[in-house]
Amino acid sequence: MQEDYKGPALELQCVNTIRAVSADQPEAANSGHPGAPMGCAPMAYLLWAELMKYSAKSPKWIARDRFVLSNGHACALQYTMLHLSGYDLDVGDLKNFRQLLSRTPGHPESFLTDGVEVCTGPLGQGISNAIGLAMAETNLAAEYNTPDYKLFDNYTYVICGDGCLQEGVSAEASSLAGHLGLGKLIVFYDDNNITIDGDTTLSFTEDVKKRYEAYGWHVQEVTDVVTQLDDLRAAVNVAKSVTDKPSIIACKTLIGYGSPSKQGSHDAHGAPLGGDDLAGAKEAYGLPKDKMFYVPPEVQEVFTAASQKGEKACEEWQDLFNRYMTAFPDKAQEIQRRFAGRLPVDAFDNLPKFVIGQDKDLATRKFSEQCINAIVPKVPEFMGGSADLTPSNCTRPKNAIDYQKDTPQGKYFRFGIREHGMCAIVNGMFAYGGFRPYCATFLTFAGYCMGSIRLAALSKFGIVYIFTHDSIGLGEDGPTHQPIEQLEQLRSMPNINVFRPADSNETAAAYKVALECHDTPTVIACSRSNVKALFGSSIEKAEKGGYIAVDAEDPRLIIISTGSEVEFCVQAAEKLTAAGIPTRIVSMPCQEVFLQQSKEYQISVLPGDMPTLSVEASSPHGWHRFSHAQIAMESFGCSGPGEKVFDYFGFSPENIADKGHKLVQFYKDAPVPNLSNVPHFEPLHKSH
Amino acid sequence: MQEDYKGPALELQCVNTIRAVSADQPEAANSGHPGAPMGCAPMAYLLWAELMKYSAKSPKWIARDRFVLSNGHACALQYTMLHLSGYDLDVGDLKNFRQLLSRTPGHPESFLTDGVEVCTGPLGQGISNAIGLAMAETNLAAEYNTPDYKLFDNYTYVICGDGCLQEGVSAEASSLAGHLGLGKLIVFYDDNNITIDGDTTLSFTEDVKKRYEAYGWHVQEVTDVVTQLDDLRAAVNVAKSVTDKPSIIACKTLIGYGSPSKQGSHDAHGAPLGGDDLAGAKEAYGLPKDKMFYVPPEVQEVFTAASQKGEKACEEWQDLFNRYMTAFPDKAQEIQRRFAGRLPVDAFDNLPKFVIGQDKDLATRKFSEQCINAIVPKVPEFMGGSADLTPSNCTRPKNAIDYQKDTPQGKYFRFGIREHGMCAIVNGMFAYGGFRPYCATFLTFAGYCMGSIRLAALSKFGIVYIFTHDSIGLGEDGPTHQPIEQLEQLRSMPNINVFRPADSNETAAAYKVALECHDTPTVIACSRSNVKALFGSSIEKAEKGGYIAVDAEDPRLIIISTGSEVEFCVQAAEKLTAAGIPTRIVSMPCQEVFLQQSKEYQISVLPGDMPTLSVEASSPHGWHRFSHAQIAMESFGCSGPGEKVFDYFGFSPENIADKGHKLVQFYKDAPVPNLSNVPHFEPLHKSH
Repeated sequence: MQEDYKGPALELQCVNTIRAVSADQPEAANSGHPGAPMGCAPMAYLLWAELMKYSAKSPKWIARDRFVLSNGHACALQYTMLHLSGYDLDVGDLKNFRQLLSRTPGHPESFLTDGVEVCTGPLGQGISNAIGLAMAETNLAAEYNTPDYKLFDNYTYVICGDGCLQEGVSAEASSLAGHLGLGKLIVFYDDNNITIDGDTTLSFTEDVKKRYEAYGWHVQEVTDVVTQLDDLRAAVNVAKSVTDKPSIIACKTLIGYGSPSKQGSHDAHGAPLGGDDLAGAKEAYGLPKDKMFYVPPEVQEVFTAASQKGEKACEEWQDLFNRYMTAFPDKAQEIQRRFAGRLPVDAFDNLPKFVIGQDKDLATRKFSEQCINAIVPKVPEFMGGSADLTPSNCTRPKNAIDYQKDTPQGKYFRFGIREHGMCAIVNGMFAYGGFRPYCATFLTFAGYCMGSIRLAALSKFGIVYIFTHDSIGLGEDGPTHQPIEQLEQLRSMPNINVFRPADSNETAAAYKVALECHDTPTVIACSRSNVKALFGSSIEKAEKGGYIAVDAEDPRLIIISTGSEVEFCVQAAEKLTAAGIPTRIVSMPCQEVFLQQSKEYQISVLPGDMPTLSVEASSPHGWHRFSHAQIAMESFGCSGPGEKVFDYFGFSPENIADKGHKLVQFYKDAPVPNLSNVPHFEPLHKSH
Repeated sequence: MQEDYKGPALELQCVNTIRAVSADQPEAANSGHPGAPMGCAPMAYLLWAELMKYSAKSPKWIARDRFVLSNGHACALQYTMLHLSGYDLDVGDLKNFRQLLSRTPGHPESFLTDGVEVCTGPLGQGISNAIGLAMAETNLAAEYNTPDYKLFDNYTYVICGDGCLQEGVSAEASSLAGHLGLGKLIVFYDDNNITIDGDTTLSFTEDVKKRYEAYGWHVQEVTDVVTQLDDLRAAVNVAKSVTDKPSIIACKTLIGYGSPSKQGSHDAHGAPLGGDDLAGAKEAYGLPKDKMFYVPPEVQEVFTAASQKGEKACEEWQDLFNRYMTAFPDKAQEIQRRFAGRLPVDAFDNLPKFVIGQDKDLATRKFSEQCINAIVPKVPEFMGGSADLTPSNCTRPKNAIDYQKDTPQGKYFRFGIREHGMCAIVNGMFAYGGFRPYCATFLTFAGYCMGSIRLAALSKFGIVYIFTHDSIGLGEDGPTHQPIEQLEQLRSMPNINVFRPADSNETAAAYKVALECHDTPTVIACSRSNVKALFGSSIEKAEKGGYIAVDAEDPRLIIISTGSEVEFCVQAAEKLTAAGIPTRIVSMPCQEVFLQQSKEYQISVLPGDMPTLSVEASSPHGWHRFSHAQIAMESFGCSGPGEKVFDYFGFSPENIADKGHKLVQFYKDAPVPNLSNVPHFEPLHKSH
């Protein structure tokens, strides 16, 4: 640290420059959040000038320290730091803050801006992601490091505010982080006593430090970071010396520090300071009050030097890795492959191939377990766990070692009853690079973690969600546990594939597509109860998202279905065909993937002008584009044995056949609306 | 308490009977959770035999103590207690545990079973609901009690397990409960060290007691509740003496206590014990091992006596209320009205009526604020707050008093940055009776609280959710804050109305319908930015969910839209009509309410066989039932000024007119698929 020390005057000038440049961005945009950057600038200075190992030229250097700005609305601060440290973000980018298609959006987006690890903004997510980042480091270190080659040895730093610590998702993740003793995670808590509504005394008077002690964290408080950095620097040193606990350092800051009229007030939070106030702040900082985005040369020198130090470290690490490559070529190649996001060529060689008449009917959650067991030995980056539903979700590979404080090489995660924290943590693991995490709970609890699933979809993180107990068919647990709306809720999200396999082949296809889609998360919804294998299924067909599972000569009716209801439809089709209504069954394990097929293929499966009935024990929403009529759940479910519940709500071969018959009757003398004869107007634009 | 004391032997016999009858239920059902009831029986005994004020004959007696079984999977315990205490739940009901249409479903359902206050099962919700129940009591006490009339003076008791305390939702709500100093909330923590995955040491090693101290709770531990009750009894007395803090009593229990082979193991959690094991447990309890649902007469006497005491208390309270009615007739009638769920006749008299050309264009969130200000003085049960977005959500009524520890009469709630906790708390307030709560956040954060919203819909709680910043139009905050899928996610849930008003009249209609629907929650999605009033709108029309906002003679095209996009469509229709394509604009503020109108009305608005384009800056999902083509969001949004973002993604009069024109062209030489010419098969059954 000694070598980095610049003396208090230059340090303060650096910090004040960070404040000014960060406040300039919302000012230029006439939109944004100056207050938090002005308060958090001291922490940011210390991180980029002294603490962090990073390479602006190689922002994806895998051994870099990770930084997460959990209070993402303070992103002007992060952009300032990236700009000062030589990342590909020039003053033009800063001037473009919050403008359309800029690289400086209103909250940090990992896929837009080099140096941003995760998308933050939705509060509580960033700190929870950081726990995943820290877990990833310990796991890779345990897997690949040797006494001579400490390839993986980085810190994870976080800045977060009151909001992040009020959110339940961070509570869940932080409790687990304490349990896991993540010693290289250091959180700076921007303890400014201000939220949007006003003072934190309005709603947040708990003892945060005591709470984090209760979680098993190492907790410190620094009361002055506004005008000097020595206390904070010392606290970081202590935090680093505590290697068996995550650290949180509560830093008493002043929101909008330096603003003549808004310092310490929530008025500094969410709107530009305004010209006079900003000029006043710059005067207080000893900076020219009329210059925007001004960086004094001596300040730039500090960051240029820090940046050069980082490049040197990166080069040294590359040398280390080159030697490692010689010593452990297989491991080195595996690391490269994992970080490139490439699957092994034999990833799917062991996927189960179901033989009808020989293999046993099982629940798709059991087929899912077979797939996990087939993939895990081939794909070391595929690992995960469950939110305390391991025996129900069937997610623990044979002979797995639990990932725990004393067994960081373990690849099975015990997330506890913490669905939201779990999903935020796996986002962090994915963001680290080299991981393809899966996580699991009951489908109904997707509603507990939708906030994190959304961020996976937005961030292009190919997470695999194994959501079992996927319908009213779960039975006795009743409506609180029976998902109704969740499939459509997930399907309506951009960039996510939702599979609901009907049998073993379809389950295998779901896993194959899921892992092949590196940039798209996948939900695999599995049944609690046994399903009958489809004669017409195969992995290849199911990979198309929808296909003809049972066809009839000159069909007069099509029934589309998914998951455990397909077998009822197959039985219904037998009845209907026997009764003179030749019926085609389309199994549609994944609407999204089906819609990616050629129009020709789609029409070959679903011509659109043949009476079409969809059958899914779920909300009818979303099925109107494919079918003229729906057998669906138009209410919540109820408690009872699964087969009786299915039957009660109409998911029986008899009712399906009856409705199929009625549908054909309905169109006997009237034209069938051709659902394929509709235009799809390409959107003017899609986002990045 | 003295009078209730039965001596240790009879007490223990009561507790063991509770254990046996609770274990009998899963045994009979061959499904369910015996372990937690066997562990928690001592707490339940104390509650029903001694502590709680209840009336089995008048289960909705408004002054009753409230009990919440937060670990809802232990519901056999609750059913046992209701059965023993004389509620309308006989042994036949217990034998019907978890069977179709029984009153003893797999998790407690408040609308099915007298004596169940809230639906529990999804972990963490119950304890959070209880915080709302306790808040409700303090608010009503402050509003209506006088020194001579303590009408509202009840305790709220909770039993919860490890799962509930791991969930983030309970962390959020518990932090707020500590802040609010809810002295009459007493939580029994079933501290049994077991979760589904196994021992809590797998993932949950935090110091729970210290954490609750950090929240500001009064914390006690009782190490033996298995064989004697004196320590627990004493702890409850201490808890009651601490009137300025909520209390949690960690009770060291043994899951499956008494089971010869499963006691203390997660094997006792989720499956029946099995005949031999159950018999062994009964032997250990000193009960006949072959009898199912056996209640020794002396045990029944204990509960009959307790129940009679409750009836007496209820009668005394009724006398008190009758005297109150004489002394304060207006207040008494208001209490009766509120608890009957009836609105005042003049509830909506002050709703704003927008005059075009006179009133100012505002954002619908500002119109929403006007509605709140119009309703609050008329409807005292309508109160709520925001998850720390008060200035953005515009939810604080003029001159409101905050509900705080020292101002429990306050009617504005500062929930903090705790969306999930907020939604669970308002569920509890509604469940108390006499409240019509609203709560607010940004629409994008609906994903943080979907778990609690779902329970409102399931439980028939007419909560009003004010979700502002309802589209990409919010602009600079970018894709993390721009909702895309949330409208459809909410629409696909059963029993919820989702309004997205386009102007002042539609906003007023949304509030009117919301409050009129006592048993259905309502989302009101509001814009951040100003909207133009529709010439064709009115409260009456908007109350139908969808209506013709602008018509044309012999229309050849229909454009359906919602919210802030309607005005773009109106402008597009002007262009189109001028260009020879007479265009009708349908404003559809609420799909659910529109679908409840007569088929004739629906067809008069949307005939189905006219080219129909829907325009909503949201996922296209759900629109295919109404329109042939969609202008919608097929990706996440991006950061930029709102009007530019709208324009970029195609939500401009020009693009809408262009696509409208193309749609008419598309069907120039082909039949228009008639979207109304589809059958709706009534579901075989809906749930209760």
